[in-house]
Amino acid sequence: MADQSREIPYKIYLEEKEMPRQWYNVRADMKNKPEPLLNPGTRQPMTAEELSAVFCDELVQQELDDINPYIDIPQEILDFYKMYRPSPLVRAYCLEEKLDTPAKIYYKFEGNNTSGSHKLNSAIAQAYYAKKQGLRGVTTETGAGQWGTALSMACAYLGLDCKVYMVKCSYEQKPFRREVMRTYGASVTPSPSDTTQVGRKILAEHPDTTGSLGCAISEAVEAAMGTEGYRYVLGSVLNQVMLHQSVIGMETKIAMDKYGITPDVIIGCAGGGSNLGGLISPFMGEVLRGEKNYRFIAVEPASCPSLTRGRFAYDFCDTGMVTPLAKMYTLGSGFIPSASHAGGLRYHGMSPVLSRLYHDGMMEAVSVEQTSVFEAAVLFARVEGILPAPESSHAIRVAIDQALRCRETGEEKTIVFGLTGTGYFDMFAYERYNNGEMSDYIPTEEELAAGFAGLPKMD
Amino acid sequence: MADQSREIPYKIYLEEKEMPRQWYNVRADMKNKPEPLLNPGTRQPMTAEELSAVFCDELVQQELDDINPYIDIPQEILDFYKMYRPSPLVRAYCLEEKLDTPAKIYYKFEGNNTSGSHKLNSAIAQAYYAKKQGLRGVTTETGAGQWGTALSMACAYLGLDCKVYMVKCSYEQKPFRREVMRTYGASVTPSPSDTTQVGRKILAEHPDTTGSLGCAISEAVEAAMGTEGYRYVLGSVLNQVMLHQSVIGMETKIAMDKYGITPDVIIGCAGGGSNLGGLISPFMGEVLRGEKNYRFIAVEPASCPSLTRGRFAYDFCDTGMVTPLAKMYTLGSGFIPSASHAGGLRYHGMSPVLSRLYHDGMMEAVSVEQTSVFEAAVLFARVEGILPAPESSHAIRVAIDQALRCRETGEEKTIVFGLTGTGYFDMFAYERYNNGEMSDYIPTEEELAAGFAGLPKMD
Repeated sequence: MADQSREIPYKIYLEEKEMPRQWYNVRADMKNKPEPLLNPGTRQPMTAEELSAVFCDELVQQELDDINPYIDIPQEILDFYKMYRPSPLVRAYCLEEKLDTPAKIYYKFEGNNTSGSHKLNSAIAQAYYAKKQGLRGVTTETGAGQWGTALSMACAYLGLDCKVYMVKCSYEQKPFRREVMRTYGASVTPSPSDTTQVGRKILAEHPDTTGSLGCAISEAVEAAMGTEGYRYVLGSVLNQVMLHQSVIGMETKIAMDKYGITPDVIIGCAGGGSNLGGLISPFMGEVLRGEKNYRFIAVEPASCPSLTRGRFAYDFCDTGMVTPLAKMYTLGSGFIPSASHAGGLRYHGMSPVLSRLYHDGMMEAVSVEQTSVFEAAVLFARVEGILPAPESSHAIRVAIDQALRCRETGEEKTIVFGLTGTGYFDMFAYERYNNGEMSDYIPTEEELAAGFAGLPKMD
Repeated sequence: MADQSREIPYKIYLEEKEMPRQWYNVRADMKNKPEPLLNPGTRQPMTAEELSAVFCDELVQQELDDINPYIDIPQEILDFYKMYRPSPLVRAYCLEEKLDTPAKIYYKFEGNNTSGSHKLNSAIAQAYYAKKQGLRGVTTETGAGQWGTALSMACAYLGLDCKVYMVKCSYEQKPFRREVMRTYGASVTPSPSDTTQVGRKILAEHPDTTGSLGCAISEAVEAAMGTEGYRYVLGSVLNQVMLHQSVIGMETKIAMDKYGITPDVIIGCAGGGSNLGGLISPFMGEVLRGEKNYRFIAVEPASCPSLTRGRFAYDFCDTGMVTPLAKMYTLGSGFIPSASHAGGLRYHGMSPVLSRLYHDGMMEAVSVEQTSVFEAAVLFARVEGILPAPESSHAIRVAIDQALRCRETGEEKTIVFGLTGTGYFDMFAYERYNNGEMSDYIPTEEELAAGFAGLPKMD
């Protein structure tokens, strides 16, 4: 087997028996822990009891656990993972050749399942714990629709009811995404809607709004808390989501170790942080424990730049200000990205775990403009044969930029990025790009200041 | 390793080095060969020279070769295959449990690539030989859009121009499918169009037609023959396509042999026959050589029943009657399925290879109605986590029926079917089904007689 490390196949699939059986909880190895969620009324840390009104009990434990580094994945979830995992770690031979770079490029491809993204990794976990607790159903929000689709699939599999609040502009631009969720038995409501108090309030104030993830979260939380036997679930931002998504990084690390590959730089797109957090977790753990050293780069859209231009502050997770407060990089919960932005990653905040790591200098962040993102997406699609999601293409953009830098310097760096999903339901955005109708947008300082002005006062 | 045959993983992925390096040409083992293509003017077998006006030279050789059982796959094509192959052979544990059947169900899943189907297997081969011959580009038709997408991808990879004639109703119902092709640099024209003589003629006679695959073929052939440096390529029906698609069956057989699995029945959907032919080829070869015995079942839509209700006769491959004549099961080249039919597989004829095998009793065929097909599709999506293409769901329907029969009889049969693709671009059809707006349609005897009346006279 000595030769194997020199003959890297195009795609590395772990065998079923090599798949990870535990999630890795990076908080356990962080010296500076992410700050706790606060009750917005008392400004005191949310207790398990308070959280359990919103989330189901085992997820509350996972949300609060910053001690245990490894959490066993229940057998039922492992079995579901086997339906679509392991995901391949792909050596981008064709992209390398196209770029004429000495860099070695790998991507962990999470799009080969019907949800079209990595979101299924946490959806099945959250649905499983809800089912185990005897709940009837769950509510959630979805923006681009990947999370809602993933949750619909998980709920269909387990026989749970699923109510999805879908950001209105996405609901209208992506009727087929909505239809996939319906095929999996979910009910899908465009948000803001008149089915919740907070939705009616937002509609009264902004009758023409096309919605935002923050609005949809408010509605989904209200719907869960107002319905017996329901809880709310969230596809990103939360600690529990980072935990479940660590399966991405665990598989990546096992595959790389098996073939003797050591990454120099690990790149992921960042909206709420679920994919990036999951991909980097086990590698970050090695750095935190002083065992290894890697560069980590978060990539976000220039039109929604929470890490690169946001504030590290306590803020609401939603627009309607019904959620707990999280300490995170944020643009303010009232920030809504320009309607011209088509690339996803529209969330105003960022995972408290990633925010803390970024604040402590453990991770870099860059922002990129959407036309350059779609340019990278089309190049990638043509040479690697996978049509990427706009979100994922943010990471492709920066991976390509890094590889081109290697061409200049001659460095044979090993670059790994997360290819979180496919773009089959994003052809509306591709069409705009193909027709030359896409423009870039960078918020002004004044627009950002308006967002920051809405941050809750914390003294 | 003795235990391995008893522990079948959810998904069997061959290692790169286990992947087949040759295509298998089932014609070599057929005692009764498929009849040759005829020149529609002279009614004499098409010569290589005549065929090379339409197809590129190496493909002409493959089209005519009924002697050599194995054809080496060129290294460039093997490299492209590595980007998205091997495809998984999946044990449908969840479906088996849901059906409470003693049957063991496997499916070969060809949908995990951006074209969304098995069509890429032949697209890259045809594009490769065109490139090798120094051609500038290729023309083709596409119905549901899978073939056009696959060809666009292959052409983008090789730097060939690609002109696609897309059946008009599909062009209109699937704007996003069209946009994927454009993203891969193809030009896409709704058919019938005014860009060809045959298109203008069809439009003059049937101004409201929503098009058919047969019309689009006529236009694509005319466009190729009228443009210097272009050839026509076809995604199904032809012998060369069966040959390329044999990679599906080869991989399936290698994987099954590796785990000691022997199929009892092999099921595939059949439009022009490319997937079914590819899947069954190496297994059929064993039967033809007297080594083994399997049941083969072709599944077609009740609304376009070429095998079960068609004639075994020489017919045109297209509506405009510009192609050679093929001896095949056909409904007549003028047959256009009901507009209410949403399940794909709309072609009037059937691969001459499969037609011959069926005629000789080597294969069975059944037809199924579309509401029962979508019912199977939704069931499958929910338990197996893959949203299937409507085409593929024809095979799912019959695999489920076979498994339910095993539940009655207690037989532990091993059922294998081809899951040719995903349904992400078919949500218009799913929406109709989800809304209860889908109906079934079976052509009357009179409608079939009208199709047969158009068959060319062969005396």
